[in-house]
Amino acid sequence: MENPVVGIVAEYNPFHLGHAHHLKATKARLPGAAVVAVLSSHFVQRGEPAFLDKWTRAEMALSEGVDLVLGLPTAFSCHQAGIFAAGALDVLWGTGLVTHLSFGVEDDGEDSMDTIVGILMHEPPGFKQSLRRHLEEGHSFVEARSLALEEWIPGAAARLRRPNNNLALAYRLHARRKGYPFRFLAVPRKGAAYHDPSFTEGLPSATAIRAHWLRGDRAQALEGLPPRSGALLVREADRGRVCGGPLPLWWALLRHILDRSTPEELRESAEMAEGLEHKLLKEARETRDYEQFLQRTVSRRYPRSRIQRLCVHLLLRHDHWFNRATQRLGPSWISVLGANGQGRKLLRRMRQTATLPLFSRFACPPDPYSRGILALEGRASRLWESLVPGGDPEREPRSRPLMTGP
Amino acid sequence: MENPVVGIVAEYNPFHLGHAHHLKATKARLPGAAVVAVLSSHFVQRGEPAFLDKWTRAEMALSEGVDLVLGLPTAFSCHQAGIFAAGALDVLWGTGLVTHLSFGVEDDGEDSMDTIVGILMHEPPGFKQSLRRHLEEGHSFVEARSLALEEWIPGAAARLRRPNNNLALAYRLHARRKGYPFRFLAVPRKGAAYHDPSFTEGLPSATAIRAHWLRGDRAQALEGLPPRSGALLVREADRGRVCGGPLPLWWALLRHILDRSTPEELRESAEMAEGLEHKLLKEARETRDYEQFLQRTVSRRYPRSRIQRLCVHLLLRHDHWFNRATQRLGPSWISVLGANGQGRKLLRRMRQTATLPLFSRFACPPDPYSRGILALEGRASRLWESLVPGGDPEREPRSRPLMTGP
Repeated sequence: MENPVVGIVAEYNPFHLGHAHHLKATKARLPGAAVVAVLSSHFVQRGEPAFLDKWTRAEMALSEGVDLVLGLPTAFSCHQAGIFAAGALDVLWGTGLVTHLSFGVEDDGEDSMDTIVGILMHEPPGFKQSLRRHLEEGHSFVEARSLALEEWIPGAAARLRRPNNNLALAYRLHARRKGYPFRFLAVPRKGAAYHDPSFTEGLPSATAIRAHWLRGDRAQALEGLPPRSGALLVREADRGRVCGGPLPLWWALLRHILDRSTPEELRESAEMAEGLEHKLLKEARETRDYEQFLQRTVSRRYPRSRIQRLCVHLLLRHDHWFNRATQRLGPSWISVLGANGQGRKLLRRMRQTATLPLFSRFACPPDPYSRGILALEGRASRLWESLVPGGDPEREPRSRPLMTGP
Repeated sequence: MENPVVGIVAEYNPFHLGHAHHLKATKARLPGAAVVAVLSSHFVQRGEPAFLDKWTRAEMALSEGVDLVLGLPTAFSCHQAGIFAAGALDVLWGTGLVTHLSFGVEDDGEDSMDTIVGILMHEPPGFKQSLRRHLEEGHSFVEARSLALEEWIPGAAARLRRPNNNLALAYRLHARRKGYPFRFLAVPRKGAAYHDPSFTEGLPSATAIRAHWLRGDRAQALEGLPPRSGALLVREADRGRVCGGPLPLWWALLRHILDRSTPEELRESAEMAEGLEHKLLKEARETRDYEQFLQRTVSRRYPRSRIQRLCVHLLLRHDHWFNRATQRLGPSWISVLGANGQGRKLLRRMRQTATLPLFSRFACPPDPYSRGILALEGRASRLWESLVPGGDPEREPRSRPLMTGP
């Protein structure tokens, strides 16, 4: 029998010591396993432009021991946890090789996960009533679901409020729904919580690293990265290709798009909620920057990440019906961002095993649905490039997978 | 009989010594006349954002002796000479007071103007054939018309290539078509030609003044302005409200809009020509800034001002059918930007004489067509405000006519 192949769903935004710990722990538990990561594109799950382009983040992953890096298109990467997880697992399953799924969790509450997945799969009537009640109270879907689960499994709500645990649940749920027979490796997180902006205890989060870097405290930020990953960050900064901070252009583009759109048109944008279009139009007129705009539009029902993703979708012109199609159909091909020697062996095996077609470059796929995903990906890449001083709008069509040795 | 009221079509971008000369010469030829100017909005005839907002340019005009300043909405001000002139004359005629029209000309070729207007009104068959032939040779409409006229009136082409003469022809032609009984005062220009960027001879052009200011040579630029006008320019600069230079945001917005548009959508934009949409899409991908984009898209058939106006229309989402409606229906109200004591007397008389309704603020007119013009004007003002550091997107709805004494 072949060695196990372990899949990782990642943003590596940027690749830091916590990610290195997760990778090392994964390899320790599966000696000899090959590692395949599926990586967020230029807009990440929280609804923000990625700190570094996807090719650099793939390079970081390869430099730190991942064997093969596949791309998760923006249509899936910049989406709520359920769509993000489903798209990523579909890509990993599409390789025909992945046997295990390794992910970080915030605590050791994994025991209750099977029960939670069971409840969410079967949705007993009492649970559905409770979910509806919490939604009517004005909670977001994720929060309402957590509160309903809490009534069945005390402690569930607190655990699911931690983003990594929520993603871990999304992986398990999608695997169960699709019947993917992955074996799960839940690796407890070492260091600060996901979005913790401080450096005070343990390993710093990606949020803390980005914040330090962007406010000019580069030495402190680099302390949170493995050396090769840090060197790549410095290289990209020298090229003017680090994205973050207040981004006045982002706000100017968003305000312009809102200014030229009618409420009817906004309602056709992906994930727009009834009535929210009027709120967005009003606040775009009355606020002075993106941060203030977010503060005024975020609410209990529409958390910050939800509003941020809405704005990304608006700028990418990701429309409602195509969004529905992507949720139903999922990724329709596998794109390769990079591989080492072991990764290239996997790619050769995939010629036999893959259930999705494999594209190693930004080519023109044959069917309209795939072309739609690719067109969205092209717009996302050009938008990201327009946000950095060293941006190159033609980078995506020129890109080739990064092949490293051995 | 009342004193004469002389109308002036102006951009005052900015108000300079050449404009002061024109105003003085006009008053000298019509002692006691009141002067009404109709002023370009935030996007001027050449297809560029105005150097200063329309309220400041109105203030300059009042400070230099214009009595009443009316607004020419962007739907008309940012358009080819024929539409620009027609919109402006319709506003002046709509006051019910204007008896004379005063404009600058580049030379003393006014004698031939009546003959030219006669030819263009009646379009004899030989002229039409000649016009068609020159169009088929790939010339722009204005140039083809000049070349055809040249065959009837030697010297006409050279004269009409000078922008002020071309505008003077457009005024005469529209007045003749509409039967407006204006008496014309053609005031020979003193100083440099319209777009001459040099300061070498006589009075500098507005183009030269803007260029010097934007490259930091403020003292030289101010030498071309009357003192009060210069003081207003300095005040606006202190407020971060001078617009010009390479404008990277303009390019970022244009590229983003082109990136999210299909060729079919571009064809629905005002004044788009068959096939040009593909050229714009291609060059937006392949050029690094607006200047390079213009260099690659400008041709004999599509001069720079034509392409620049197309880009303004795209960003303002000025669509083909609404554009056609504006050409057919013209301005449907008169907006007041400012008045002195004499101007306020005119405004009182206009209650009896005006044939268009008078709006002294950014109000909501009753009919859909006027609301469309006003919505476009609002988008134009917000776009202009987004281009300057001291921009205020809510400036237009808060604006009131400037009333000065005596």
